[in-house]
Amino acid sequence: MAKLAKPGQQVLLEPKDLSHHFSEVTKNRHPSQIKEYYKFFQIPGMGNLAGGMPHPSLFPFDTLEAQAAKPERWAPTPNYPPSSGAAASRGDGAKEDPVSASSHIAVPKYSAESNPLHKIDLGTALQYGTAEGYPPLLSFVRQFAREVLHPNVPYRGGAEVIMTSGSTDGFSKTLELLTNTWSENTGSDIRDKPGLLCETFIYSNVLSQAEPRGMNIVTVEMDQVGMRSSGPGGLASVLRNWDTTKGKRPHILYTVTMGHNPTGGVLPMERRKEIYAICHEFDVIIVEDDPYWYLQFPSAANHEALSRGLPETTPAPAVKPEKSSGFEFIDSLVPSFLSIDVDGRVVHLDTFSKTVAPGCRLGWITAQPRFIERYGRISETAAQQPSGFVQAMMAQLLLGQQTETIRTFFSLTPTERKTFTGWSMAGWVRWLEGLRGVYERRMVRMCTILDAAKDGIRDVPAGGDSVMVFKSPVMSFSWPRGGMFAWVKVYLARHPCFGKKGPTIPTITGRHLSDAMLSLLTKEEYRVLPAPGAMFAANQKIREERAWSYFRLCFAAETDDRVDDCSRRFGAGVRAFFEIRSVALIEELLKEGGL
Amino acid sequence: MAKLAKPGQQVLLEPKDLSHHFSEVTKNRHPSQIKEYYKFFQIPGMGNLAGGMPHPSLFPFDTLEAQAAKPERWAPTPNYPPSSGAAASRGDGAKEDPVSASSHIAVPKYSAESNPLHKIDLGTALQYGTAEGYPPLLSFVRQFAREVLHPNVPYRGGAEVIMTSGSTDGFSKTLELLTNTWSENTGSDIRDKPGLLCETFIYSNVLSQAEPRGMNIVTVEMDQVGMRSSGPGGLASVLRNWDTTKGKRPHILYTVTMGHNPTGGVLPMERRKEIYAICHEFDVIIVEDDPYWYLQFPSAANHEALSRGLPETTPAPAVKPEKSSGFEFIDSLVPSFLSIDVDGRVVHLDTFSKTVAPGCRLGWITAQPRFIERYGRISETAAQQPSGFVQAMMAQLLLGQQTETIRTFFSLTPTERKTFTGWSMAGWVRWLEGLRGVYERRMVRMCTILDAAKDGIRDVPAGGDSVMVFKSPVMSFSWPRGGMFAWVKVYLARHPCFGKKGPTIPTITGRHLSDAMLSLLTKEEYRVLPAPGAMFAANQKIREERAWSYFRLCFAAETDDRVDDCSRRFGAGVRAFFEIRSVALIEELLKEGGL
Repeated sequence: MAKLAKPGQQVLLEPKDLSHHFSEVTKNRHPSQIKEYYKFFQIPGMGNLAGGMPHPSLFPFDTLEAQAAKPERWAPTPNYPPSSGAAASRGDGAKEDPVSASSHIAVPKYSAESNPLHKIDLGTALQYGTAEGYPPLLSFVRQFAREVLHPNVPYRGGAEVIMTSGSTDGFSKTLELLTNTWSENTGSDIRDKPGLLCETFIYSNVLSQAEPRGMNIVTVEMDQVGMRSSGPGGLASVLRNWDTTKGKRPHILYTVTMGHNPTGGVLPMERRKEIYAICHEFDVIIVEDDPYWYLQFPSAANHEALSRGLPETTPAPAVKPEKSSGFEFIDSLVPSFLSIDVDGRVVHLDTFSKTVAPGCRLGWITAQPRFIERYGRISETAAQQPSGFVQAMMAQLLLGQQTETIRTFFSLTPTERKTFTGWSMAGWVRWLEGLRGVYERRMVRMCTILDAAKDGIRDVPAGGDSVMVFKSPVMSFSWPRGGMFAWVKVYLARHPCFGKKGPTIPTITGRHLSDAMLSLLTKEEYRVLPAPGAMFAANQKIREERAWSYFRLCFAAETDDRVDDCSRRFGAGVRAFFEIRSVALIEELLKEGGL
Repeated sequence: MAKLAKPGQQVLLEPKDLSHHFSEVTKNRHPSQIKEYYKFFQIPGMGNLAGGMPHPSLFPFDTLEAQAAKPERWAPTPNYPPSSGAAASRGDGAKEDPVSASSHIAVPKYSAESNPLHKIDLGTALQYGTAEGYPPLLSFVRQFAREVLHPNVPYRGGAEVIMTSGSTDGFSKTLELLTNTWSENTGSDIRDKPGLLCETFIYSNVLSQAEPRGMNIVTVEMDQVGMRSSGPGGLASVLRNWDTTKGKRPHILYTVTMGHNPTGGVLPMERRKEIYAICHEFDVIIVEDDPYWYLQFPSAANHEALSRGLPETTPAPAVKPEKSSGFEFIDSLVPSFLSIDVDGRVVHLDTFSKTVAPGCRLGWITAQPRFIERYGRISETAAQQPSGFVQAMMAQLLLGQQTETIRTFFSLTPTERKTFTGWSMAGWVRWLEGLRGVYERRMVRMCTILDAAKDGIRDVPAGGDSVMVFKSPVMSFSWPRGGMFAWVKVYLARHPCFGKKGPTIPTITGRHLSDAMLSLLTKEEYRVLPAPGAMFAANQKIREERAWSYFRLCFAAETDDRVDDCSRRFGAGVRAFFEIRSVALIEELLKEGGL
């Protein structure tokens, strides 16, 4: 077992030197030779004939501006499980007033500010910068990561951060940091084949990143909360029984622990400790990809019970963090693996994709300083830094001057010009809280509708004239405890056509039925597109055996009203699909869907 | 010799299948399995529960706006070599009036436009997008690349494009596309060690990208225009005499052909044809990195001659392109390797770093379609796409509605509100022409000052009482024919202290003198920082043997007035350095500079 930092334990050790995990390419990255000259640039009045950079006066942008939300735009939901009824989290009190809750922000070409951590202007943001990030924004994110999100990292000095172009970029750089590419075509030894531990269902882009590098995708079984630590197919079993003739024992674990995509689980602290101890024992790096950490739904368990006529759940008492983030909202969330990372073996991937917009292509990595330093060298030789356009706008939104206004540039009405400072840390946390409110209310609406649809199919057993009508469930699901998705198991193996012989298909399988149901759902009567489980299967075996039974329903991409409507149409479509008795019709649906 | 397309030849062949050059990782990249479901998203009214994306109403940005230049902000210089005098390119006629030559642009949250090539709004630009680029911007860039920059690509269908996060990102992806990593530590065969052909002096980040991957850096000698094709150390010689015990014969050539960094040469068409023929013979991919292609200086040769009291040069008659770009400015520039790329072996890297701002982190790759398709798969698994913030702003600047205004949002004076469409292609080309004007005028100013400083040092030979004063040049350089840099050779081997014994240094070498001179230049009297040649040496041998004699002076990073002043201070500093007779003083300077 790993020695975990005990509450109250104050003497922290340095994070371990885990550089033996670095790839050959990473080991070969030496600091830039140019850096020894950097000091000269800092001398005031130095004439710069050295840098190959255009003068900012030649940038065609004189300002960058925006109409932006104020942090209070969306109404929060309670931080702790509400008692019965829970009207507050059902959609009441939502304040969605984009016009009055907005302000104007403008990044000037030049700012007279001399402190680079406070200077936000285009002369710096649109110039060549540092791989770690635009100083004012990096400084904000660093404070957010170290003091708010992860104030309890149990190694000396705490974690460091570096900006990325989003979490896909972050994971791509992580693979480059930690793995050599492997190919049998270049005569690589099978015992060097690197492996990636992950859950059985996974965000598929991760596979597109790892597989071409020749990695073994090594699945670990999961339950409703996430990855299993013990038992058959659990993490300990996979690592203990590793067969080295299949490749190197994996030294990287990829996991989504908060609002797992696609299954919606949130990994509790007890499970985290078990998994961490195993990773310590087998010297595995944990890559925690957390796009949804702020979307934890305390109301889910109670709502689920109420909706299904079950007794109310007794919420587990909230674990009080050793050191508070300073925000009740953040303290109420299950913390990251970083909070128990005594070794420094956790790499935490964050993104602004879900909190601001996917098109930002902006995020950050939090990890021990030795890792962050190498990420910097990797970034310098790739895109160098995230775009200054988004870094400047985010810095201005969070830290810069803003002007309260209910008009846009082109309107004619007078403006109230109360100037105030940007969102700041409290505003940012308030924005996240509001977003959680929006998503939690949507989750409740979708799941309430799905609950009403999951039972009650007329089942018509073949057999003479007697028609027996009874109710049996066509699907089941847990209300998601976090994230953006409901993960619905449709009982396709109970479908009347399952295993039957079709006109041209020898045996109608679960995969056929999954595709046929999707085809039916996209027809005019239903016009709704779920994501089929096969998209998330971590390998071919899982795809064949069980993925076809699942569908992921996202409650984020549509507006509130349409989420209701789409959920109803999904429920109606599934029920209609179960009424189909004709294998010929199943084949027709497959043909129509082109699947 | 390669079969080059003859003028007037209309029957073009398909580009060659060069996929045997792809890396193992690239070969293993299969198209996304999710794509077969994309068609369903296109059905009108489809309820989207599939995509894991937030709804745009939840983005905190309601608009993105900017004050931006109009394309006419800067005054151009003539497109063809001006006759004697050439006042026009000396700085006369520059119109630098940023206030009146500006307009306001605003990207709305939602646009009603249905054609995705014309729809510019935050609902699309800040959402997840496609790796190839934001459709309106990609469409503009594709037209610019195919019809304006490279209208004469001699293979069927012409070249394709994909957006990048700048050229460093573009080259990083090119290495991933075409090379396996190599390391002796993993038992790789020396005969598989990949090689990179490049000029002897090079932008050092390219080395930071290639070396950690285990690549051989294979230098090709260069002259004033660029890479040598023949002769000792020329490209043909390097490839013909390749010793396979040192690694695989290189199959990638990296080159900067327009305003070479650091040497300032522009590779003429005749030399391009020779190099292309050799690359065809040895099956080498040409990676042409062209951040400065629009900065070609037709006045340089004449100005150089006039400044040095030499007879005026007779300009070579401009080569009329087979198919015009439609713009006299573009037609006057030496075209890319793509214009003779019958095989489809040229990868052309472009960037907005020098034409708009480095902080854009935005550029594009132009190459044959098979390459572009694989770049797309590489991008999907890295940053996915360049930031939507910069793509939206660039699309709006180039294609969107703009409002003429001399005020910013916060000013109180009335606004003239003449709305007009964005820059468009003609405006973009006009902007480039204006930038060339600014840089060409700066180049002329810097080089005129340097010419005045390069001669005339009092030389005091040691030898009794007799002091003989005479003039001899301390440096020499060619006026750059393109780009942002003057590449100055300082005759440090003629310095009085060269080869002498110092108080602690056994022999004062050229490297010592280079560092000492830099140290002197940064002192208060001169306060000017050139980039020492060692920064650009492609390998240690060149660094030791000759790089120390060179300094790169950039005329881009400072304002016009400061460029004059810095050039003067550089000239004065070099002269002062040559007056130093004391080896102790040289050592003192090294100590002070910390070099």
